[in-house]
Amino acid sequence: MHAVRRLFTPGPVPVHPAVLEATAQQPLYHRHRAFAELLERVHTRLQMLFETSSPIAVLTCSATGAHEAVARMLHDRGSEAIVCVGGRFSHRWAQMLERFGACVHRVESAWGENIALDALERTLHAAPRARSLWIVHSETSTGVLARLEEILPLVRARAPEIIVCVDATSSLGIHPVRMDTAGIDVVIASSQKGVGGLPGLGLVAVSSRAQSAFLTQPETLYFDLRTALDSLKRATTPFTPAVTLLAALDAALELIEHEGLRRRWERYAHTASSIRECLLTSGYRLFGECSSNAVTVAYVPDHVPDLVERLDAEHGIVVARGQERFRDTLFRIGHCGWYRQEDLDALCHALATVAKRQ
Amino acid sequence: MHAVRRLFTPGPVPVHPAVLEATAQQPLYHRHRAFAELLERVHTRLQMLFETSSPIAVLTCSATGAHEAVARMLHDRGSEAIVCVGGRFSHRWAQMLERFGACVHRVESAWGENIALDALERTLHAAPRARSLWIVHSETSTGVLARLEEILPLVRARAPEIIVCVDATSSLGIHPVRMDTAGIDVVIASSQKGVGGLPGLGLVAVSSRAQSAFLTQPETLYFDLRTALDSLKRATTPFTPAVTLLAALDAALELIEHEGLRRRWERYAHTASSIRECLLTSGYRLFGECSSNAVTVAYVPDHVPDLVERLDAEHGIVVARGQERFRDTLFRIGHCGWYRQEDLDALCHALATVAKRQ
Repeated sequence: MHAVRRLFTPGPVPVHPAVLEATAQQPLYHRHRAFAELLERVHTRLQMLFETSSPIAVLTCSATGAHEAVARMLHDRGSEAIVCVGGRFSHRWAQMLERFGACVHRVESAWGENIALDALERTLHAAPRARSLWIVHSETSTGVLARLEEILPLVRARAPEIIVCVDATSSLGIHPVRMDTAGIDVVIASSQKGVGGLPGLGLVAVSSRAQSAFLTQPETLYFDLRTALDSLKRATTPFTPAVTLLAALDAALELIEHEGLRRRWERYAHTASSIRECLLTSGYRLFGECSSNAVTVAYVPDHVPDLVERLDAEHGIVVARGQERFRDTLFRIGHCGWYRQEDLDALCHALATVAKRQ
Repeated sequence: MHAVRRLFTPGPVPVHPAVLEATAQQPLYHRHRAFAELLERVHTRLQMLFETSSPIAVLTCSATGAHEAVARMLHDRGSEAIVCVGGRFSHRWAQMLERFGACVHRVESAWGENIALDALERTLHAAPRARSLWIVHSETSTGVLARLEEILPLVRARAPEIIVCVDATSSLGIHPVRMDTAGIDVVIASSQKGVGGLPGLGLVAVSSRAQSAFLTQPETLYFDLRTALDSLKRATTPFTPAVTLLAALDAALELIEHEGLRRRWERYAHTASSIRECLLTSGYRLFGECSSNAVTVAYVPDHVPDLVERLDAEHGIVVARGQERFRDTLFRIGHCGWYRQEDLDALCHALATVAKRQ
C-alpha cells in the first residue's frame, strides 16, 4: 500500500496546514467572550463568502442536517415544495421533505444534464401553492453546476413569493453564489469542501423573507433556526457547538480572505480544467455536462474495472466511486480541497499510468 | 487579563494533548477502509465504556441532537412519555418530546434533590401507556447524580416494557453507567466531557428492545437511527461525519483504556472531593445533594457577587454561571476534563483568594 495518501474525494478534502493548527488548540467555552469573538469573526467572514448581509446560522451537523433544519422550518404535513432532481443529493432532499409529510413536485432532469427551464416553468405553473423551491447548485453525484443565472430570474417571474433554497455545499468557495444579488432566500453549505474547513458544521444563510416564512411551532428543538439566529445575535449558540471546528473554519475563512474570492474561483477553474485535460489526454471519457469546478465525473475505462482500487493501492490517490446505478461505471474526482502542484501532478501521473494497463 | 486560561466548565473541557494531536491530522474519506478501521476501533472502545454489547451510533451533533434522534425514533404525535425533571437539562428533554406532539408525564423533583421514588412510582402507575422513561444521570445544572441503582429496579418492577433512556452526557467516563447489567435500553452521551474527546459527536447506544420499538417511518432523515445502525454494520455513516473529531475520540478512548475504568472513576471522585474540600475550607456553601463527580455547584458568596468574572480576569479560571433562576446566585465548577495537579492547585488558590475579597 502507498505510504502517502492523497484525497481527491468530493469531501472530506485535504485542508491547509493552518487549518489543522487552528483545530488543535484547546477548546473554548461557548459561553465565554473568547468564543463570542471567534463566532463574530467567523460570521463576518461567512457573510463575505456567501455575499450576503443576512445572518448565517452555524449548526453542529453535516450539510444534510442543515437541510433538515431548513426543511423542518418551512414545511409541515401537507405543505407543498418543488425540488429540482437530477442526482443523488437532490433526490435526497426530495425524500427528506416527504419524510415530514410534505407534498413534493419534482422537476426531473437526467443525471449529467442541467435543469430544463421549460419543465421548471410547467411545474411552477402546476404547483402555485408550493412554499419552497430547492436547487442543488453543484450536484456532487454528477458534476453538474446549475445555471442559477438562468433559473432564478425565471422562478422570480413565475413565483415571486416562493422561498428559493440553494444547496451550495460543494460550490461555495469554488463558484460565485451571490445570495443577495441573485435573490436567493436560503443558502445551505458546510464547513468543509470548497470552504476549506473540516467537516462537522452546517451553514445556513437565511434572508428576512425566509425567516418570516418559518413555522412558529417547528417540530424540532435541535434544528430550530429561530433559536439559532436568536443566539447568534448574542454571539453564541443554543447548544454546545463543535468549538474546535469553528476555530478551523475561522482559519479557513482567513485564507479565503487573503486569497480573495475572484482569485480563488479562477484557481479552482484552472484546477478543474487541468484535471479534465489530463483525463482526456489519457483517454478517459467525461460524464455529462461537467460544469462544476468542485468535482469531475468520468467513466471507468472498460479495461481497468478496478480503477478506484488501483489508484489507491498503487499511487495513494483516493477518488470516489460513482453513485447508485453508476457505482461501477463512473468515478468521481473531487478537487475542491487544498492541493499543491505536486498533488495535482501525482493525480495526473496516476491517472495516466493506470489507464495504460491492460 | 490572565495569560493562561483554564476551563473548569461543564463542557467543553480541556483535553489531553494526545487528543489535540490526533484531531490535527488530515481528514479521512468516510468511504475508505482507513475510516472503516477507525470507526470499528472507536466502536469497540465505546462498547467497553458504555459496558454494553449493543451497537452505539456516532452522530455528528451535540448530545441535544442525539436526544432528538432518540425521541424522534420512539415518539410520534399523541404517544406518551415519562420524564424525570429536576434541572435544566431534564426540563429540556421534556420540552423536546412535547415539540413532537408527545404527551409528557413529568416526575418533578426540586433542583439539587434526587428523584423521589414514590413520585416516580405514582407516575408509572398513572401512565401505563407511556412508551419511554427519561432519566438524566448527572444533571449538569444542579450537580445531582441520579441513583440509577434504586430507580431502575423500581421501574422494571412496575413497567417491565417501558423503554428506559438514560442521559449520561456528563456521567460517562466519570461514573459507572453499566448499560447491560443495569438493564438500560438507550444511553445517550457525547464525545466530550468525561469521555475526553472534543465536542461535536453525539453517542447513542441502543438495546435490541429499543430498536424493536423504533417507529418504522420516523419523521427525520438526518436522525434516523435505523440507517445509522445499518451503516455502522458496514463500518461507515449515512452522511459525512466529523471525521477529525472521530480521530480525537479514538485517542481519548485509548487513554481511557490505558487508565482503566475503575481507576478513572476513582480519580474523578478524588478530584471532586478535593475541590469540594477546597470550597468548604474557603467558606463557600455547596448546593443541593452534590453527588455528581462531573460538576460541583456552589453558592456565589454575597460579598463577591462578581465571582465568575473575577476568577476569569484575575486568575484565568473559567467556571460556569448558575442556570435559569440561579444564574447569579450559583456557580458551577466542571471538573470532568483533563487536569494536571497544577491546574487543580490554581483553581483552589483562585477560589480561596477571591473569597477573601471584601
